[in-house]
Amino acid sequence: MLHPDFLFPAETGARGVARRLYGEVAALPIVSPHGHCDPAWFATDRAFADPASLFVVPDHYVFRMLYSQGVPLEALGIPLADGTPGDAEPREIWRQLASHWHLFRGTPTRLWMEHGFSTLFGIEERLTADNADRLYDLIAGKLQEPAFRPRALFERFNIEALATTESAIDPLPHHRTLRDSGWAGRVITTFRPDAVIDPDFPGFADNLAELSRITGEDTGSWNGYLAALMQRRAYFRSFGATATDHGHPSAATADLPHAEAASLFARVVSGATAAEAELFRAQMLTEMARMSLEDGLVLQIHPGAMRNHNPSVFARYGRDKGADIPTATGYVHALKPLLDRFGNDRRLTVIVFTLDETAYSRELAPLAGHYPALRLGPPWWFFDSPEGMRRFRELTTETAGFANTVGFNDDTRAFCSIPSRHDVARRADCAYLARLVTEHTLDEDEAREVAIDLAYRLAKSAYRL
Amino acid sequence: MLHPDFLFPAETGARGVARRLYGEVAALPIVSPHGHCDPAWFATDRAFADPASLFVVPDHYVFRMLYSQGVPLEALGIPLADGTPGDAEPREIWRQLASHWHLFRGTPTRLWMEHGFSTLFGIEERLTADNADRLYDLIAGKLQEPAFRPRALFERFNIEALATTESAIDPLPHHRTLRDSGWAGRVITTFRPDAVIDPDFPGFADNLAELSRITGEDTGSWNGYLAALMQRRAYFRSFGATATDHGHPSAATADLPHAEAASLFARVVSGATAAEAELFRAQMLTEMARMSLEDGLVLQIHPGAMRNHNPSVFARYGRDKGADIPTATGYVHALKPLLDRFGNDRRLTVIVFTLDETAYSRELAPLAGHYPALRLGPPWWFFDSPEGMRRFRELTTETAGFANTVGFNDDTRAFCSIPSRHDVARRADCAYLARLVTEHTLDEDEAREVAIDLAYRLAKSAYRL
Amino acid sequence: MLHPDFLFPAETGARGVARRLYGEVAALPIVSPHGHCDPAWFATDRAFADPASLFVVPDHYVFRMLYSQGVPLEALGIPLADGTPGDAEPREIWRQLASHWHLFRGTPTRLWMEHGFSTLFGIEERLTADNADRLYDLIAGKLQEPAFRPRALFERFNIEALATTESAIDPLPHHRTLRDSGWAGRVITTFRPDAVIDPDFPGFADNLAELSRITGEDTGSWNGYLAALMQRRAYFRSFGATATDHGHPSAATADLPHAEAASLFARVVSGATAAEAELFRAQMLTEMARMSLEDGLVLQIHPGAMRNHNPSVFARYGRDKGADIPTATGYVHALKPLLDRFGNDRRLTVIVFTLDETAYSRELAPLAGHYPALRLGPPWWFFDSPEGMRRFRELTTETAGFANTVGFNDDTRAFCSIPSRHDVARRADCAYLARLVTEHTLDEDEAREVAIDLAYRLAKSAYRL
Repeated sequence: MLHPDFLFPAETGARGVARRLYGEVAALPIVSPHGHCDPAWFATDRAFADPASLFVVPDHYVFRMLYSQGVPLEALGIPLADGTPGDAEPREIWRQLASHWHLFRGTPTRLWMEHGFSTLFGIEERLTADNADRLYDLIAGKLQEPAFRPRALFERFNIEALATTESAIDPLPHHRTLRDSGWAGRVITTFRPDAVIDPDFPGFADNLAELSRITGEDTGSWNGYLAALMQRRAYFRSFGATATDHGHPSAATADLPHAEAASLFARVVSGATAAEAELFRAQMLTEMARMSLEDGLVLQIHPGAMRNHNPSVFARYGRDKGADIPTATGYVHALKPLLDRFGNDRRLTVIVFTLDETAYSRELAPLAGHYPALRLGPPWWFFDSPEGMRRFRELTTETAGFANTVGFNDDTRAFCSIPSRHDVARRADCAYLARLVTEHTLDEDEAREVAIDLAYRLAKSAYRL
Repeated sequence: MLHPDFLFPAETGARGVARRLYGEVAALPIVSPHGHCDPAWFATDRAFADPASLFVVPDHYVFRMLYSQGVPLEALGIPLADGTPGDAEPREIWRQLASHWHLFRGTPTRLWMEHGFSTLFGIEERLTADNADRLYDLIAGKLQEPAFRPRALFERFNIEALATTESAIDPLPHHRTLRDSGWAGRVITTFRPDAVIDPDFPGFADNLAELSRITGEDTGSWNGYLAALMQRRAYFRSFGATATDHGHPSAATADLPHAEAASLFARVVSGATAAEAELFRAQMLTEMARMSLEDGLVLQIHPGAMRNHNPSVFARYGRDKGADIPTATGYVHALKPLLDRFGNDRRLTVIVFTLDETAYSRELAPLAGHYPALRLGPPWWFFDSPEGMRRFRELTTETAGFANTVGFNDDTRAFCSIPSRHDVARRADCAYLARLVTEHTLDEDEAREVAIDLAYRLAKSAYRL
Repeated sequence: MLHPDFLFPAETGARGVARRLYGEVAALPIVSPHGHCDPAWFATDRAFADPASLFVVPDHYVFRMLYSQGVPLEALGIPLADGTPGDAEPREIWRQLASHWHLFRGTPTRLWMEHGFSTLFGIEERLTADNADRLYDLIAGKLQEPAFRPRALFERFNIEALATTESAIDPLPHHRTLRDSGWAGRVITTFRPDAVIDPDFPGFADNLAELSRITGEDTGSWNGYLAALMQRRAYFRSFGATATDHGHPSAATADLPHAEAASLFARVVSGATAAEAELFRAQMLTEMARMSLEDGLVLQIHPGAMRNHNPSVFARYGRDKGADIPTATGYVHALKPLLDRFGNDRRLTVIVFTLDETAYSRELAPLAGHYPALRLGPPWWFFDSPEGMRRFRELTTETAGFANTVGFNDDTRAFCSIPSRHDVARRADCAYLARLVTEHTLDEDEAREVAIDLAYRLAKSAYRL
């Protein structure tokens, strides 16, 4: 089912180059510096429950498409906002997927899933309503085998390092278990402080209280709050973290004098206006950059999603249900305060992502092609796709080159899709490079070096892994 | 002149796939759910007057290009704003077209016209100043033949359904004639209420008075106004309408409480500020969606054109003279009030178009890939072109799939271009699908299904035809 | 090193067409109507000093990339803001370039430089740390030969006309020398009045004083100021200028009544607010258009760069150090006042550029495809690249055609890159046209005409050369 020339250009010469380049990178270890796998999988190493809970229920790419075409979220087993688990039968969920399989034509979801079906489970036929039950049983059976336990898959996937993402106030119990387990797999955490940095985050006040409780710092004072964050960063670093991650509505940064920042914090703690909340998030990105210079954590900024666009779905099912929608996102003015202060410092690495592709050539590539501290994150979310990757390269390379990019992020909660996502990225990059080679703008020996950079080396160096 | 591989990729394998896919759709009937043909053509079935009035005078694509390169609109027979017909000789207009034919190199206008010349009139040579008179005579002669009357062409074009667009206060005399004529051709109307919904529309107050006159409702009151619109929708439905269409400066929607809406209407009737006019248009889109849930009409939103950018041309020649220019158009915030209220209702179909291609991947595909009520209209106006279609598919498919799009609209007042426009769209889609097949991201049997969907089935289902 | 099929599509048929089209344009003379070469080179005809000062120090494309990856600007010989020359040894600078050569993979800088190395110096090996010294010596030696003097290169490059760009208050000594020299090379100036039009320009008040001094006009009064500008335009025309050029933060234009403009000028002279400065720049574009109608100078607008984004680099090194970053730029509203007044006048030519590619299809092509006075400048700055050129054609041609574009600008201060930049542009356009031919949307004989237009004729006609 997985054609050897999958994603390669049709023209014979370019296809040959793509094949050769891909041959150099296909078997490289996977470096996954940003993602959302559950560390409990590797800590407990329990078998995955069933095909539906592995492939459908946690994957918003999958259920948002089904929902858009009229499949109720109930029928897909989506849990309620209050935590009540969905009560759809896993097999029924799987049948929904199978009977709507045609909806995924032309989408990366289809590519990832068929890639996984084929390479993991040896399935070489298309999912249909007719074979749904048989394939369900086949996968469900395999999942009970020792070879399909999380750690075994981790090793089979040839993952050199996998970063999960945890809230700043998460005690990281699973990472502790992992660290103490003696298992050789490198599963590290990432410091994600949105819950204690974004005044609009649900439960912000409670989160600050919890931050105080676990650090012993007075998070009601600006200095205590900053000390608490610094302490948590150290805690995360002790579980391998090499990066922080920040999901803000915009890329705004600010660099207020200390007294103004303290005063803003005081207002924010007692209930911020929308403008104050935005300014506070902006200030905190610069504070995080300052701390990164001290402790070496790479700073990732993921801006520009309007979260929970659909109030009915949010009320019933809560966050992360496929209703986050990108918005126009500016970087030139937004990042300036942070860059004014730290942008020329080579010791700092700030990785910026976008959901607004217009920023690639107009803003992000020109910025990353100048500031020593700035790097471009790979195409993200809706753009983690063959076309999205092609546009990313075509729109950034001529101005920022390859060295100002950072390799691939799979960014996924779908563990079994990790090899296929990396494979799609490697193939898409080889296809792009093959075009440069056949158009004589890059020599093949250099393209080979670049292919290895993009597949492996840049992620390691940018994320300090 | 029309090469069998017109618009297909050059590479042999992809070209072969494109040919096979196209073979499946080339002869499918034309479904034209959105356009601007004159229903009088089919009601009276009179011969078209001459080549100039068929191909040049009504086609703003044609005369805007000629004007941009210095041909006066007078020389092209454009009528004045007060209705005075242009006094250029049709043959002289045609000569202008012929002597400037090179200006259309690389444009869809050129493709549509040569396609039509070839398939309709058997012309297999390029239009030049030298052959202008001969080709004029050839076309003019054919137009007098019975086979070139509007109804005969309609049948020859294999049109299964053709929607025209009429103002909400149009009495629809030609559609009445058509309905009573016994002719089997399905020519239906579309409910276009801009003239009575947009306070900035010329003659808005008079239009409301006319709306009152023909409905017997008190259009000075909010409730009477809504009832009048509902009545007109029913009238349009009685002439086959399955859709409404709304051409607003932005995609703004609003969902005011009834009392606020009524109060806004009162202000609007007595002369609105720009902000009130915008809010009123926004509110009316949501009212239209509410009515659509009652009567089943599909709601089309065509936002983002700045109308009549050129005041000199507008003063002399009036509206629709090629001086409408797209503007940056946001959808995420703009559509939210309407979607908050009705976006999860599968019984509603809202089809959104754009003149701002940056919205495809950033906003429209993510929205349409989530909301059950939302669909993406095809590439519109300046983007009804091979490159425009390619960008549309590349920028929307990975996130919204094919099923959240609605097939092709020819959107034309140039009747003879309808077959060529649909042919260009079918070929462009087959070319796109051929690439997916040759890159092994879609199997050819599935691509065949999709090609038929895009050429025929989606338009029928989305527009309820 | 320079492959004959450089930049051509890989597919055999398209490659053949591209080769044939390129064969028609490869040897055409170079028309360079917009650039930043130093007229002193041709006035004095002194040998270029060394490879570093020719290829690295003046080229912000080169040093911004090196800087982004950690090479200090000191190490690249960049002079300080106060004019102190850099003290890095030229050979050391060259070694920095050589040892970071891999950073330029996939960038146009790499293409231009290797093209120049090969065609000018016969270098057929890749620059490396190992061969850096040898190639340095080779180039340095050649530069001392008579055949590598500026005038000899100008002739060897087959330049028919080369426009430099000078400030409105520049006395143009080198152009005077050139005019008096009897040398046949056509090196003309361009009138660039930013320094006396933009209130935010460093030294604005002093510049106005200087403008008064050299014209004898009272530049403290609106009428005197306008008369001084008109006088300087005549002076520039006497040195061959056929165009003016305006680098504004936005594309805003205004058309104030005379009294308001005079009053605005009075406020601007005594210290403008940011809004007044913007309005004044806007007004001045319309004044420039008015003067262009009188004296025939073509008006170029280069908007949308945020200058000097990096305050540390600006403080130490001054302007033009690779820290100018594009911003989102609107044209539809911005250009309207100017177009309302002069847009229908065929005697005027306004050439508009953009750093915001989203404007190509949404705004610029629709505007240029309608207004007789408006033309689209070629892809600019970061988009002077193969991908940038491809996007420009794909996003503008279908709406604006070819005739509303103006050929290529090399826009460079790197004299030796001029042939390679024009060659890249010619090849990129032939590649685009080859696709149209192989997809049967343009006949090859017409593509040949278009190729010659794009490479040569349009620049001559649009710039009145």
